[in-house]
Amino acid sequence: MASVIKVNLPQQFYDIAIAPGSLDQLGEYMTSLHLGKKVLLVSNPVIFQLYGERAIASLKAASFEVASYILPDGEHYKTLASIENLYNTALENRLERSATMVALGGGVIGDMTGFAAATWLRGINFIQVPTTLLAMIDAAIGGKTGVNHPQGKNLIGAFHQPRLVLIDPDVLQTLPTREFRAGMAEVIKYGVIWDAQLFAELEASQCLDEMGYIHSELIDSILTRSCQAKADVVSKDEKEAGLRAILNYGHTIGHAVESLTGYTQVLHGEAVAIGMVAAGQIAVELGMWTQQETQRQDALIEKAGLPTKLPAGLDIEAIIEALQIDKKVKAGKVRFVLPTQIGAVTVTDQVPADIIRQVLVRM
Amino acid sequence: MASVIKVNLPQQFYDIAIAPGSLDQLGEYMTSLHLGKKVLLVSNPVIFQLYGERAIASLKAASFEVASYILPDGEHYKTLASIENLYNTALENRLERSATMVALGGGVIGDMTGFAAATWLRGINFIQVPTTLLAMIDAAIGGKTGVNHPQGKNLIGAFHQPRLVLIDPDVLQTLPTREFRAGMAEVIKYGVIWDAQLFAELEASQCLDEMGYIHSELIDSILTRSCQAKADVVSKDEKEAGLRAILNYGHTIGHAVESLTGYTQVLHGEAVAIGMVAAGQIAVELGMWTQQETQRQDALIEKAGLPTKLPAGLDIEAIIEALQIDKKVKAGKVRFVLPTQIGAVTVTDQVPADIIRQVLVRM
Ligand SMILES: NC(=O)c1ccc[n+]([C@@H]2O[C@H](COP(=O)([O-])OP(=O)(O)OC[C@H]3O[C@@H](n4cnc5c(N)ncnc54)[C@H](O)[C@@H]3O)[C@@H](O)[C@H]2O)c1
Ligand SMILES: NC(=O)c1ccc[n+]([C@@H]2O[C@H](COP(=O)([O-])OP(=O)(O)OC[C@H]3O[C@@H](n4cnc5c(N)ncnc54)[C@H](O)[C@@H]3O)[C@@H](O)[C@H]2O)c1
Repeated sequence: MASVIKVNLPQQFYDIAIAPGSLDQLGEYMTSLHLGKKVLLVSNPVIFQLYGERAIASLKAASFEVASYILPDGEHYKTLASIENLYNTALENRLERSATMVALGGGVIGDMTGFAAATWLRGINFIQVPTTLLAMIDAAIGGKTGVNHPQGKNLIGAFHQPRLVLIDPDVLQTLPTREFRAGMAEVIKYGVIWDAQLFAELEASQCLDEMGYIHSELIDSILTRSCQAKADVVSKDEKEAGLRAILNYGHTIGHAVESLTGYTQVLHGEAVAIGMVAAGQIAVELGMWTQQETQRQDALIEKAGLPTKLPAGLDIEAIIEALQIDKKVKAGKVRFVLPTQIGAVTVTDQVPADIIRQVLVRM
Repeated sequence: MASVIKVNLPQQFYDIAIAPGSLDQLGEYMTSLHLGKKVLLVSNPVIFQLYGERAIASLKAASFEVASYILPDGEHYKTLASIENLYNTALENRLERSATMVALGGGVIGDMTGFAAATWLRGINFIQVPTTLLAMIDAAIGGKTGVNHPQGKNLIGAFHQPRLVLIDPDVLQTLPTREFRAGMAEVIKYGVIWDAQLFAELEASQCLDEMGYIHSELIDSILTRSCQAKADVVSKDEKEAGLRAILNYGHTIGHAVESLTGYTQVLHGEAVAIGMVAAGQIAVELGMWTQQETQRQDALIEKAGLPTKLPAGLDIEAIIEALQIDKKVKAGKVRFVLPTQIGAVTVTDQVPADIIRQVLVRM
C-alpha cells in the first residue's frame, strides 16, 4: 500500500512517497536523488526520542554522514533565533552546497528546517519527513518555509521546495489525539475546497477523531487524496499568485484566532476549524453557499472532535483588527476564501466588516 | 546615451537601465512595473544624504507611498541583526506582498535589502539603484542576496531577482576613489573571463584609476559591457549550477584575504584584484595560461590603482585553511576559476595545495 504523488513545478519536481514503515528506508529513498554525503537531521526532543535513531540508522546504512540538531519543541521556538542556531550548526558541520537538511517532525520543524535550508549558502537541499497529520498533508508540501515575527505568524520566510516528502503513516500512532484532530481539520478543508469524493468518504466514516478507530483504507485515502489536492493546487500556482489562495480556506479568521490567543491555547488546525465554520457562515450570509452544506461541513468538523466556536473571552473587535495585519491583506482589503459548494470555493475581498462581526458574534 | 540590457531568466525577466540623470526618473521607471503603492527605500546615511531626497521626490511624484530606512554604513552591519531591524520597519509600515523595497546604495545595501525582500512575506518586489561601480556592474545584477555570518561572508542568503536595476552613472562622481578602483577590479574580471573587447578598451585607456580622467565613452562602455557580461552569464545559469561559477574568478583567494583581514582593511574589489593575480599565476604554473597574458592582466590591475600583492603580515597557511570553509568548496575540494586566454576561463578543483602555497609565497 505504497503510493507516490508527483509535484510538478516549472523548474523542479519531487515525489511525495507514502508508505508504511518507510522511515527505515529514508536513506534508500534519498540515495536516488544524488545528493551530497552530508546530512543535517533536524528534529525536536519528543520526535527524536521516538524516531531519530531509526532515521539516522537508515541514513548511515546508505552511507550518508549524519549530524543532528535538536530544537526545543513548540511553536514558541519558531523564531529567527532558532534559525541562527541552525546556521551555527550548519557551519560547525561544514555543510556545503550539496548537503541536505532533513526535517523530522511536524510543521514547526518542517517550516524552520526548510527556511534554514532556503537561506544557508543561498539554498541547499532539504527533505521533509513529516510526523504529524497536518505536516504530512499540508505543511510539508509546497515549499512554504519560514518563522514567526514577534508580531505575526510566518511573516519571515521563503519559498523553497523539498527534494522529497517521505510519509510513513505508522508514525501517526504516537501522535497525541489532539494533534491528530488538528490535522483532520486540513483534511476536511481539502474536502470542502477541492475534493467532494474525499468529503463523502469522511462523511461515510463512523469515526474521525481517533486514529486507532479509523479504517486503514480511510487513513490511506485521507493521506493520498489530501496530498494529491495540495500537490494539484501547488503545481498550478507555485508562488501563490492566484489559485493557491484557496488553501487559505478557514485561515483568515483562523490566523487571527491563533495570533490573539498567543499561539498556545488553540492549535493551528483547531483555529482553521473555527475559521472554516466562520467562513461557511459568511458564505451563507452572502448567499453564496447553502445552509444545508454548511451544516454538513460543521458536522464533519464536530465528528473530528474539533471546535466550532470561538474560544471564550476572545474580543471580536480584536479579531477584526488582527485581520488587517495578516499576509492575506491586499491593498488594505481582507481576502476570504468562501465555499460555493462542497468541492469548490471562490476568493473575494468584498466581505463587509459588518457581516464578519455578525457571524463572529453568533459563534 | 541611455542603454537597456535585458536579463532573461526562466521564470522572470528584468531590465538593467543605464542612463545619466535617471535617479530623478526612478518613480517613472517603476510605474511601468505595476507594483503596489508602498515603497520602503533602504539606504545608508552617506548615500541617503547625497541622493535620498531626489529618489524620494521622484517616487512621490509617481504617487508611491514612501517610507525609508537608514542602515549604518559598512560591511560590519551586513548582519542578520540588521535584517531583523528591516523586518520591524516592514511591519511598522505594513508592507504587503505587493510592496517594494528599493535599495539605494552599494553592494552592502543591495545585498541586505534584497535578502530582506526575499524573506519578508516569502518574497516581495525589490529594485536595485546601485551607487557604487561594483554594485552597478556586479552586485545589483543576478539576484544573489544575503548577509554575513560571524564566521563567513555571505553564508546566509537567498536568490531573489530584482524587478529593475536602475543605473545613474552620474552618482559615481561622489564615490571615493578607492571605491571606484575596487569596482574596476570586477570590470577587469569581465575582460579576462568573458569579453576580450572590453579588455582591449581598458588597455587602450591612459587612465583607469580616477573616474574624473576617464573618457565618458569608456565609462559608458565599462558599464554596458560589464552589465551585459554579468547578464549573459546569469541568464544562462540563474542558480549557479555551472557557468555562473566563472564569475568567481579572483574570488577564491580574494574571499580568504577579505575574511582573514576582518573585512575592513581590504575592500572586496581589492581582494578580488589580489585573487586574480594569484589565479593568473596558478594558471601559469599549471601550464594553462601564458605568462605574457598574465602580465597584461596584472598591468591593467596596476593601472587601475589596485593591489597585486598580499597585505603584509598575512599568514599563508591561514589563507589555505580559510579556503576550506568557503562556499565554493565542493566535497572538500577548493574550486578555482582559471584563465586559459583573455576572454575565457575554465573551472577546476584540481589545484594542488602546494601550487597555491608556492604562488602565495611569491606574492
Ligand atoms: N509550510 C506550510 O505550508 C504550512 C502549512 C500549515 C501549517 N504550517 C505550520 O505548521 C506548524 C504546525 O505544525 P504541526 O501541527 O505539525 O505542529 P508541531 O510541529 O508543533 O507538532 C505538534 C506536536 O506534536 C509532536 N509530534 C509531532 N509528531 C509526533 C509523533 N509522530 N508522535 C508524537 N508526537 C509528535 C510535536 O513534538 C509537537 O509537540 C505551524 O507553525 C504552521 O504555521 C505550515
Ligand atoms: N550580490 C552579489 O552578487 C555581490 C557581488 C559582489 C559583491 N557583493 C557584495 O557587495 C558588497 C560590497 O559592495 P560595495 O563595494 O558597493 O561596497 P559598499 O556598499 O560598502 O559601498 C562602499 C562605500 O561607498 C559609499 N558609497 C556608495 N555609493 C556612494 C556614492 N555614490 N557616493 C559616495 N559614497 C558612496 C558607501 O557608503 C560605502 O561606504 C560586499 O558586501 C559584497 O559581498 C555582492
